[in-house]
Amino acid sequence: MSLVVQKYGGSSVSDAEAIRRVARRIVETQRAGNKVCVVVSAMGDTTDDLLDLAEQVTPAPPARELDMLLTSGERISMALVAMAIAQLGAEARSFTGSQAGVITDEVHGRARIIDVTPGRIQSALEAGHIAIVAGFQGVSQTTKDITTLGRGGSDTTAVALAAALKADVCEIYTDVDGVFTADPRVLPSARKLDVVSMEEMLDLAANGSKILHLRCVEYARRYGIPIHVRSSWSQRPGTWIKDNPYEGEGAVEAPIITGVAHDKGEAKITIVGVPDEVGAAATIFGAIAEAEINIDMIVQNVSAAQTGKTDISFTLPQGDGAKGMSVLQGVKAQVPYEDLRLDDAIGKISLVGAGMKSHPGVSARFFKALADAGINIEMISTSEIRVSAVTRADQVEDAVRAVHTAFGLDASEEAVVYGGTGR
Amino acid sequence: MSLVVQKYGGSSVSDAEAIRRVARRIVETQRAGNKVCVVVSAMGDTTDDLLDLAEQVTPAPPARELDMLLTSGERISMALVAMAIAQLGAEARSFTGSQAGVITDEVHGRARIIDVTPGRIQSALEAGHIAIVAGFQGVSQTTKDITTLGRGGSDTTAVALAAALKADVCEIYTDVDGVFTADPRVLPSARKLDVVSMEEMLDLAANGSKILHLRCVEYARRYGIPIHVRSSWSQRPGTWIKDNPYEGEGAVEAPIITGVAHDKGEAKITIVGVPDEVGAAATIFGAIAEAEINIDMIVQNVSAAQTGKTDISFTLPQGDGAKGMSVLQGVKAQVPYEDLRLDDAIGKISLVGAGMKSHPGVSARFFKALADAGINIEMISTSEIRVSAVTRADQVEDAVRAVHTAFGLDASEEAVVYGGTGR
Repeated sequence: MSLVVQKYGGSSVSDAEAIRRVARRIVETQRAGNKVCVVVSAMGDTTDDLLDLAEQVTPAPPARELDMLLTSGERISMALVAMAIAQLGAEARSFTGSQAGVITDEVHGRARIIDVTPGRIQSALEAGHIAIVAGFQGVSQTTKDITTLGRGGSDTTAVALAAALKADVCEIYTDVDGVFTADPRVLPSARKLDVVSMEEMLDLAANGSKILHLRCVEYARRYGIPIHVRSSWSQRPGTWIKDNPYEGEGAVEAPIITGVAHDKGEAKITIVGVPDEVGAAATIFGAIAEAEINIDMIVQNVSAAQTGKTDISFTLPQGDGAKGMSVLQGVKAQVPYEDLRLDDAIGKISLVGAGMKSHPGVSARFFKALADAGINIEMISTSEIRVSAVTRADQVEDAVRAVHTAFGLDASEEAVVYGGTGR
Repeated sequence: MSLVVQKYGGSSVSDAEAIRRVARRIVETQRAGNKVCVVVSAMGDTTDDLLDLAEQVTPAPPARELDMLLTSGERISMALVAMAIAQLGAEARSFTGSQAGVITDEVHGRARIIDVTPGRIQSALEAGHIAIVAGFQGVSQTTKDITTLGRGGSDTTAVALAAALKADVCEIYTDVDGVFTADPRVLPSARKLDVVSMEEMLDLAANGSKILHLRCVEYARRYGIPIHVRSSWSQRPGTWIKDNPYEGEGAVEAPIITGVAHDKGEAKITIVGVPDEVGAAATIFGAIAEAEINIDMIVQNVSAAQTGKTDISFTLPQGDGAKGMSVLQGVKAQVPYEDLRLDDAIGKISLVGAGMKSHPGVSARFFKALADAGINIEMISTSEIRVSAVTRADQVEDAVRAVHTAFGLDASEEAVVYGGTGR
């Protein structure tokens, strides 16, 4: 008997009909001889509706109370899923994050899981019940207050529970058939991947692939939990994400390229005319780190010999753009630069593949594909299994198509996108 | 420094504006030098909306999951109230029933409070915070599952917390100015009472007054918690409900009549031709009690000498009518009666007053008022401080008017009814 953790996002439980459909799949999984623990997000737009309500009451809701408010969303969906399962003649019990033993730190709105003590879930599974757990939420170890995990929270809940329960697999249900060589919403010729390594998935997630949140992949890699990303709308097998997927019986070598990710959620700040002195970069990025802004790429040009000055550019989440500018204005006394520029209209395209490290020439082919499509590259960064370029935002989808085709990733038939997007 | 427990119903927190209004009143209470613990119901129609959702999923939701679902309603309202208080510059912390230490039995949908351990509330109050508690809910002592208290649940939560916190007063906010001599929605000439004894309030609540639920008054009387019923829409003093309110300085004797209650929620079952034998009534009402049906009045006629048979009538909640009939069909083998009749179209009017016991003639005046208004009496029951009559349902409001006027209860100006009704 296997133990399966399944996670259903907001679009999979958007209304009563969707909930009944999900319930059928859950019950089928149990009847196939598995113990089943299910993690659910809030229904469709519930979270946005609750945020609207909060905004009507106050422009600055306290984070503790916002968490209390938002966690009612999963409470509603999990109870309804449990009811739908009961209607099918199986036994289900719903549990809040706190009841499921999801223990977090006390940072409201983006708490991190520090322990999972799933005693009640284990008892429910032992009793032959299906356990339904609220995603995205936990309880603070120190204050005993309700916390939320922030973006991608329900995926992280699912993987964390899978690890604590020693589950055989964590199935993440979504509105596409799995992980694709590019976002099938942008590129209908994207091809579904049967398998992706944890390492590659980390790079895809970190560079704009929306299919799984970075935190969830990090958690899964740390605890060795295989993830199966699949559609809640079809019975097709999806994409398996695991360690060393290219080993074992009948294994082939890792494909050179796994896929193309893109991201339009970043901004670029350029600091013009920075004195080329020891410690300038340390001061700048020390201040940025202190403001808890995550930066992605950093590019520093060679300084012009005649001026002794250089330009530094870096990318950061668009939402942190204004904050980043204000932090940099604050360091001008220590690092007397000439000018600051914020550019919101950038896009990033990344080519990811574990086989890349043993195949020289991938970068050259990547740049040529972009050049042939008439796309200018503004910044470049690379890792062992990835090469990324920053372009104009309105060119990034063209860039995805050009690179996808240049690396022979196009499928012969179009990908299916089933519904909206969940949390 | 006083400790005040305030309870706001669904109509008092029906939208963002109402929530901000309630928050102002709460903060004013704290700034007047009180410690404040607030119990809230779900916003306006939330509970009905959640029930609709459940019905869309399954016609027979498991009670445990229905409780999990419904308790999200108070979670939303309490978080929003806490946010609105923060916006006014005061500190508030919201707590679920479970976090507030409301311990119940495990009967989902109508759990009873068996203990209140308000450690977290006390800490919050000590820290100078306003504590906001979800009404209507608790946690089962044995299963640790979330439970709901059933009808009148939030009022009961408020009184139970007031008792556990040794509060000086429990203020119940509603959409009228207090307890009236009759329901002001039916009789605009009803007069607001400044004070009512616990004993009288029990009789009013048990006989159809909707202002406070019977359970809440029972709880308050048992623990000696004074209740102040008042409007959340005005600053006027409301009605105080306490033990022995007619004693002390400047006391006057208890008024003969406190008020008139009416109830259209009952049905009458008549068992025709019951053999007049020892044990017949015991068998019948034993079976009814076993089915957990609460009966109110019972009337048995003198048996006709020639037949040795009698008729027994009793009243019960309308919702239990069909169940009551089926229970009685089941006892026919033991008690061979002739016929069963269910009558849904009855109303009950009750005259309540602590001074009644020392004033003969109250009942006679009550029956005369009904007779003068052309209203037929079908059943009668009396207690030391109450006289009740069953009439046709469509005559009960006329009966209220007639009796109210006959006992000189009419006020000179009309009562104000501010909004809808809460849970």
